[in-house]
Amino acid sequence: MNRPDSVIIIGGGIIGCSIAYGLAVKGVRVTVLDKGALCAEASTAAAGMLGAQVETHQPGPFYELCKASQRMYPEWANELQEISGISLQYIGKGILRVALTEEDEAELKSRLPWMDGAEWLTAAQTCEIEPALSEAVRGGIYFAQDHQVHPLYVARALKSALLKLGSSIREWTPVLRLIIEGNRVVGVKTTDGDLYAEQIVLSAGAWSPSLLEPLAFKLPSFPVKGQCISVRTETSLISSTVFAKGCYIVPRLDGTLTIGATQEEIGFNKKTSLSAVSLLHQKASAIVPSLSEVEFVSTWAGLRPGTPDGLPYIGQLSDAPGLTIATGHFRNGILLAPITGQLVTELLTGQPLSIGLEPYSPERNP
Amino acid sequence: MNRPDSVIIIGGGIIGCSIAYGLAVKGVRVTVLDKGALCAEASTAAAGMLGAQVETHQPGPFYELCKASQRMYPEWANELQEISGISLQYIGKGILRVALTEEDEAELKSRLPWMDGAEWLTAAQTCEIEPALSEAVRGGIYFAQDHQVHPLYVARALKSALLKLGSSIREWTPVLRLIIEGNRVVGVKTTDGDLYAEQIVLSAGAWSPSLLEPLAFKLPSFPVKGQCISVRTETSLISSTVFAKGCYIVPRLDGTLTIGATQEEIGFNKKTSLSAVSLLHQKASAIVPSLSEVEFVSTWAGLRPGTPDGLPYIGQLSDAPGLTIATGHFRNGILLAPITGQLVTELLTGQPLSIGLEPYSPERNP
Amino acid sequence: MNRPDSVIIIGGGIIGCSIAYGLAVKGVRVTVLDKGALCAEASTAAAGMLGAQVETHQPGPFYELCKASQRMYPEWANELQEISGISLQYIGKGILRVALTEEDEAELKSRLPWMDGAEWLTAAQTCEIEPALSEAVRGGIYFAQDHQVHPLYVARALKSALLKLGSSIREWTPVLRLIIEGNRVVGVKTTDGDLYAEQIVLSAGAWSPSLLEPLAFKLPSFPVKGQCISVRTETSLISSTVFAKGCYIVPRLDGTLTIGATQEEIGFNKKTSLSAVSLLHQKASAIVPSLSEVEFVSTWAGLRPGTPDGLPYIGQLSDAPGLTIATGHFRNGILLAPITGQLVTELLTGQPLSIGLEPYSPERNP
Amino acid sequence: MNRPDSVIIIGGGIIGCSIAYGLAVKGVRVTVLDKGALCAEASTAAAGMLGAQVETHQPGPFYELCKASQRMYPEWANELQEISGISLQYIGKGILRVALTEEDEAELKSRLPWMDGAEWLTAAQTCEIEPALSEAVRGGIYFAQDHQVHPLYVARALKSALLKLGSSIREWTPVLRLIIEGNRVVGVKTTDGDLYAEQIVLSAGAWSPSLLEPLAFKLPSFPVKGQCISVRTETSLISSTVFAKGCYIVPRLDGTLTIGATQEEIGFNKKTSLSAVSLLHQKASAIVPSLSEVEFVSTWAGLRPGTPDGLPYIGQLSDAPGLTIATGHFRNGILLAPITGQLVTELLTGQPLSIGLEPYSPERNP
Repeated sequence: MNRPDSVIIIGGGIIGCSIAYGLAVKGVRVTVLDKGALCAEASTAAAGMLGAQVETHQPGPFYELCKASQRMYPEWANELQEISGISLQYIGKGILRVALTEEDEAELKSRLPWMDGAEWLTAAQTCEIEPALSEAVRGGIYFAQDHQVHPLYVARALKSALLKLGSSIREWTPVLRLIIEGNRVVGVKTTDGDLYAEQIVLSAGAWSPSLLEPLAFKLPSFPVKGQCISVRTETSLISSTVFAKGCYIVPRLDGTLTIGATQEEIGFNKKTSLSAVSLLHQKASAIVPSLSEVEFVSTWAGLRPGTPDGLPYIGQLSDAPGLTIATGHFRNGILLAPITGQLVTELLTGQPLSIGLEPYSPERNP
Repeated sequence: MNRPDSVIIIGGGIIGCSIAYGLAVKGVRVTVLDKGALCAEASTAAAGMLGAQVETHQPGPFYELCKASQRMYPEWANELQEISGISLQYIGKGILRVALTEEDEAELKSRLPWMDGAEWLTAAQTCEIEPALSEAVRGGIYFAQDHQVHPLYVARALKSALLKLGSSIREWTPVLRLIIEGNRVVGVKTTDGDLYAEQIVLSAGAWSPSLLEPLAFKLPSFPVKGQCISVRTETSLISSTVFAKGCYIVPRLDGTLTIGATQEEIGFNKKTSLSAVSLLHQKASAIVPSLSEVEFVSTWAGLRPGTPDGLPYIGQLSDAPGLTIATGHFRNGILLAPITGQLVTELLTGQPLSIGLEPYSPERNP
Repeated sequence: MNRPDSVIIIGGGIIGCSIAYGLAVKGVRVTVLDKGALCAEASTAAAGMLGAQVETHQPGPFYELCKASQRMYPEWANELQEISGISLQYIGKGILRVALTEEDEAELKSRLPWMDGAEWLTAAQTCEIEPALSEAVRGGIYFAQDHQVHPLYVARALKSALLKLGSSIREWTPVLRLIIEGNRVVGVKTTDGDLYAEQIVLSAGAWSPSLLEPLAFKLPSFPVKGQCISVRTETSLISSTVFAKGCYIVPRLDGTLTIGATQEEIGFNKKTSLSAVSLLHQKASAIVPSLSEVEFVSTWAGLRPGTPDGLPYIGQLSDAPGLTIATGHFRNGILLAPITGQLVTELLTGQPLSIGLEPYSPERNP
Repeated sequence: MNRPDSVIIIGGGIIGCSIAYGLAVKGVRVTVLDKGALCAEASTAAAGMLGAQVETHQPGPFYELCKASQRMYPEWANELQEISGISLQYIGKGILRVALTEEDEAELKSRLPWMDGAEWLTAAQTCEIEPALSEAVRGGIYFAQDHQVHPLYVARALKSALLKLGSSIREWTPVLRLIIEGNRVVGVKTTDGDLYAEQIVLSAGAWSPSLLEPLAFKLPSFPVKGQCISVRTETSLISSTVFAKGCYIVPRLDGTLTIGATQEEIGFNKKTSLSAVSLLHQKASAIVPSLSEVEFVSTWAGLRPGTPDGLPYIGQLSDAPGLTIATGHFRNGILLAPITGQLVTELLTGQPLSIGLEPYSPERNP
């Protein structure tokens, strides 16, 4: 395959924009379509942890994929800031993963044999790193490579960079259907007319599966709602991200903390609820007791694209040339944006793949 | 036609919701689908003037349609508040339409012969009604029946009422395609699965036309962006809505003024611009000079569904049973919501039509 | 005493503004001074219940004062809207006071003998009025006269009306000290220079006491922080205000509910806290269980001026002519604004007092 | 003078907080008092340019003071971030000062002889640096050392750092009067009681002069309102701050631009006005034409403490021991915060002064 002259990206979330960015720097003419504003769904609802280690429970190819993307981040962030003028708010501090229960302690310790550089910290050692921790903390692991970015700024930087690179961005323009000629996907029907391109990329997150039905292909992805809160403390309580089972606390450069996140499989519902605010407050206070008296800033929710086996879909279908799928990144969309952008760019420009995509085939059996 | 057991409404703007409300009170099972939140586009971007007279330049059926809907409003608002618990902020004050140029004066005076009760007011008389008017005002007409509501509250009241009446509301669920069996429209394909109903109503505003293409029918409607601003004055400057060519100023019960609106045919672009803020400020200050020093509150934009002849589309296609169209209300969506809801309800429940729909046929030649 | 030519009001909260309004309509030249914006402290932090009955635990003059102010409200609100162009959002629905515990039931029932028209409702009867009530409700009393206004709109209406009436409003201008000649208070020293008037009114809420120290008078008032939350429900859950011990839920015309309020004696601290949000959510859900899933809108706090015996200070000091005090309204500032405005106006313009002020003397022994 | 055991700072703006910070790191017990929230007036209304060169029209001690503070910034920002956990958003890009008129070109060129490293750039050269500049630009000077911070983040970092260092912060506590014993200033009377300390610092910006009246000293400072706007561009238009006579445009790390600022001597009035929004938009568009179509984000205003000769007041009065004045920083408060903090700390802890304070004596004749 040679470099395509033109590519249409369906879905301007962080995955779609990262692919568009990868292609645009190679000189490909890219059009990004979104049913609303760019990065308005899961992308900016995320906390922005680059948690290759903290989010992985077992070794294997997915762990390697996550680590590869994590390694790309500093340079990717720099380049994006250079082009866009917008800082991604990259912070090079790690994540302190703590255990509050015996079960969680056991799960965490089971990672020690295979996770590079992971070592068990006693309760006293965790409190030395973060003195505000609760006495209920039984110990933990410090993942020094699990840094963070601010998703809102990643989104703005990607948009600014794409425009600088001459890409076309069409917001408020839902895609209704793939246009298929023979068995080849050649374009898209939108509420603003038909568009054609050499290659089409589907990266519409939780809204992706229905567009594949004309191909008689059922992508088993579904929305998983996640609600977060932001609070402000008068003085900083923690300096690393602190992460326990079911709750994380991310310190920001602006003096706020992002606390997340619920996981709710209730369909296309992204309403925020006061009960989730209370729940997150209660969970976070169990980890850092002084959080009980913080000032509330805001709450929001997003719909992550979940998959049955927890792995994303990146790749092409066996009998639908012209179409590439990149979705299902669930809790790892921010982390995996650079590597997904790179892999799809390699795929579409005929370069050798840096990492094998077999485990992420949309046609795998979960 | 008997009462349908179930109806799907595509597009939960104020038109779709008003139709849903009309059907729901008749006991019909209604499902409202929207690509985002309800009433998040043109519906709540509007100013809420019930301007049957101020917006009409010639006599005829459309003027009658507007007046019929205007007459329905007080009771419709009361009923909605009763069911929903939310006030529509109905204000029974009229609109003072003023002329600043000779041409506009001539246009306004040309309405006097056919518009009931309209009489010309001299500059002095207009200033008696609104002492804050500029000396450049040459006179005008006071349209005492052109009252107002607050679109945001109409939207909230409709949503609350629909839920009270047991209707199903599915937000963030774009409709991708009509499902057609034979030539009958029987359902819709959405990002959240397929749905079927006895009748389908298409009321998706500027996003409507593309859904009709499978029927080989081209609805010539297009988005017309309108931007408004809201300002706050320390003390009230005007008590009626003041309307000149290209600019209106609507006083709200909360002490703010809504100033509108631009008309921009630039596609699916609903970005607000600072130049529009400046322009509206300048236009409003030309009418009410003391507006030059007000406090800025906010700005927003919406995409109105425009049509070539300025009339809405309300009705059915000759060979697509199961489908009813109600869109293209351009600047008159808030005003025409009650009558559109009533007419479509009559159409779908087999009742005689209160008003003939021929002028609004989607198949008319514009 | 004849009508004073000029009056300075120290403190532009709802009490100060209501007094200014009373004087201004009598033709007195009024200047209102505030350290910040008007009505930015307790006045707009309040919920706006006109709870003469619900807030009173025993008969006596204070109950009569509250009822007198309550009776004034409809006309006062109308006049203010007439002058200002702003609706106070007066709602003529009552308050359903419910008991969740045996003790609270006993306290409530003890009011029945002396409270006009109060009668006990069984649990079933309360649920008939508000079907969303919890099964834990043991019964209650419906106070049909305890209506509501929206404090934010009262504040805006008062400001607008004062400007219309020609009063001078100087915001961001703290008063540093009373200017005293002999023993007469003749003016105020502000950060923007010295100002003189025939009469000075001190209505600076929790910030009042320190300004009296030069008179060697210690007013025992203190700040009591109150935090509230606002939530939005998709459809209305209650139509009356529902009030239990320690928590009230006020339905608004815009479809939101105001839930309040904490009572914290921690000095001049008006920070909002997430723990208060959780607490109010939990308390409200105990009364109306379906509140557990509402959408969070906002939270805020204000500093009410508390007093040892719970009664306000309205009146003059025995040896400081020229000065009138009107503060210490604690939880009843919105309710008592009209009567306080009227009484101080009567006092300063030499009219007979409608109600005796002895119980509210700043010199009483609490 | 030895190190004082305790210091009270009147006014928690950026100057007061910077002094408190300087003292606190030396181990002094500091109490900061503010009539409202910290840094809520001019401090966070500023744009944050560290414009030692751009704001100076002639050589002399003030230019040296500005440059000294500018040189302190990188380390000061780092230390503050270290202690507080909050980034000051320091950006090491310079300011491009451009001339649009012949007069302004002449004024700018008059700086070349005495300003280190300043050299004239032709129109073509300025456009090479910032291609978005208008053709009306006649040339300019690039001030490479004039970097920027974000005032809101400076404020948050100072507050967080002060709390970490154990200082006491009392917000919503206006100071009414200095407490004087003999001729010595020994404390302050506040709305929350009397407080005593070895040294008192008056840094209350535009609200400072009235507190000096008991000392029969008239400080000729006055409020100068400045209004700014923030806009968002889809892609970055400029990468340096661009500054013309009467208008500057500051690019932020979040993709917004801050455009400022009006200068209005109208007393203690900090209302924002729509006419100022229009004016700033028009001025900025004259410099960077593509700014005409940006998205509006927000507007705000602050009251800068002006002085007759444009220089701040830093120092003590000849016969009021115990009191130090630090105010009147006009447009240079953010820039001069570090050096003012250092100089007052030196003064109060008996260290030799890094820079002579004679030009800034509150007793100088302007």
